[in-house]
Amino acid sequence: MKRARVAWNGTVTDAVPLDDGRLLLPDGTVAAESDVIWLPPVEPRTIVALGLNYADHAGELSFAAPKEPLLFFKGKNTLIGHRGRTVRPDGVNVMHYECELAVVVGRPARRVKAERAYDYICGYTIANDYAVRDYLENYYRPNFRVKNRDRTTPLGPWIVSHEEVGDPMALRLRTYVNGTVVQEGDTGDMIFSIPHLLEYITEFMTLAPGDLILTGTPKGAVNVQPGDEVVTEIERIGRLVNYIE
Amino acid sequence: MKRARVAWNGTVTDAVPLDDGRLLLPDGTVAAESDVIWLPPVEPRTIVALGLNYADHAGELSFAAPKEPLLFFKGKNTLIGHRGRTVRPDGVNVMHYECELAVVVGRPARRVKAERAYDYICGYTIANDYAVRDYLENYYRPNFRVKNRDRTTPLGPWIVSHEEVGDPMALRLRTYVNGTVVQEGDTGDMIFSIPHLLEYITEFMTLAPGDLILTGTPKGAVNVQPGDEVVTEIERIGRLVNYIE
Repeated sequence: MKRARVAWNGTVTDAVPLDDGRLLLPDGTVAAESDVIWLPPVEPRTIVALGLNYADHAGELSFAAPKEPLLFFKGKNTLIGHRGRTVRPDGVNVMHYECELAVVVGRPARRVKAERAYDYICGYTIANDYAVRDYLENYYRPNFRVKNRDRTTPLGPWIVSHEEVGDPMALRLRTYVNGTVVQEGDTGDMIFSIPHLLEYITEFMTLAPGDLILTGTPKGAVNVQPGDEVVTEIERIGRLVNYIE
Repeated sequence: MKRARVAWNGTVTDAVPLDDGRLLLPDGTVAAESDVIWLPPVEPRTIVALGLNYADHAGELSFAAPKEPLLFFKGKNTLIGHRGRTVRPDGVNVMHYECELAVVVGRPARRVKAERAYDYICGYTIANDYAVRDYLENYYRPNFRVKNRDRTTPLGPWIVSHEEVGDPMALRLRTYVNGTVVQEGDTGDMIFSIPHLLEYITEFMTLAPGDLILTGTPKGAVNVQPGDEVVTEIERIGRLVNYIE
């Protein structure tokens, strides 16, 4: 079961993608993709993200792999839907895409044990967690400005249910820039698995339905430029398209 | 103008505090304080907090004062209203209150210049940004678990309008534990002023109406224990009461 969220005909509505690229709306209408604007498929209360959760990516940034989950929050100002445009700020030197599996929480989660974790997860989507590396200047809180500019986190295109995905720890991730594969990885290479992360986070805080966990990105960072088309793709989930301006 | 938000008679409603301690509801009802449960006076989309924004507090924690604003997000799971109870986790050694002036954003704010900052601020409230220092173990993101346990950030009792407060950079802060003054400071001692913070933050992200900026705490950290009554007080704003359990 895939579920998108789009603006269409003056309203915001859920939508189910059809095989021909069109969208089935709840009232039975079939809408052309050109008639909608894709929105992030969920409105989270909280977005928890992981830093350096793939050892090969930590290595390419010259960081040691963390000994426990390296958590940070993302602001809701960062989210943007499928096919949206993300600004590369003037004058920066390095802006990297990051293809990440995003876990969608399905019910209130507190003190969840790893072996029960999937009972609390309703599905998955794709996040492209852009990082502007120039801003990594602050010793105490390195990534606040790196990760929180407006509209720097495309999310979507849709949520795929846990049942339809199956095992989320065995999915290929790929990023394409202008049609060329630039990043490849496998969710099985996460340092901290999804069940472990849910146990770790909910030991001290409650996650609410719709909350997101962005599970980190593998190796393959490449600098993007205005005009680029960036596609982040995850097996069994879909392809999330974004444009740099 | 003071505005609180309370649960009363099966609903959530705004309320205006009266001089005798009772509350005036929008329909003209006067409710006794014992008939309501105080809620956080605002539901922010985003909560931005400041680390080490008073030099004397940075010093008592043996940290260097930051050279630019040290920002972090707070989770909405942390908020709790006036007169609420906050849990001291079992087995921790150090849990500190932190009395902080909380700025309430009044309208969408992006690329705001410091000299126009107060046009974007609708008022102020008090935050007690508890910190469980035991969790400061993570080199990369030191304070995620320190600052984000459920219900560790009392907020309130009410919002006071900017017009009624006047200059927010000249307010006394005091914290009392079981009636004894344990922390004293003055908002004029912030390293980064409120206008400077609004300019800095909105250069890269949009703040929405209701969003909060927690502006940091002065020196005077004392370990709290179950059974303590902690009152964080700010001149011209009010007294925020919280209990440790």
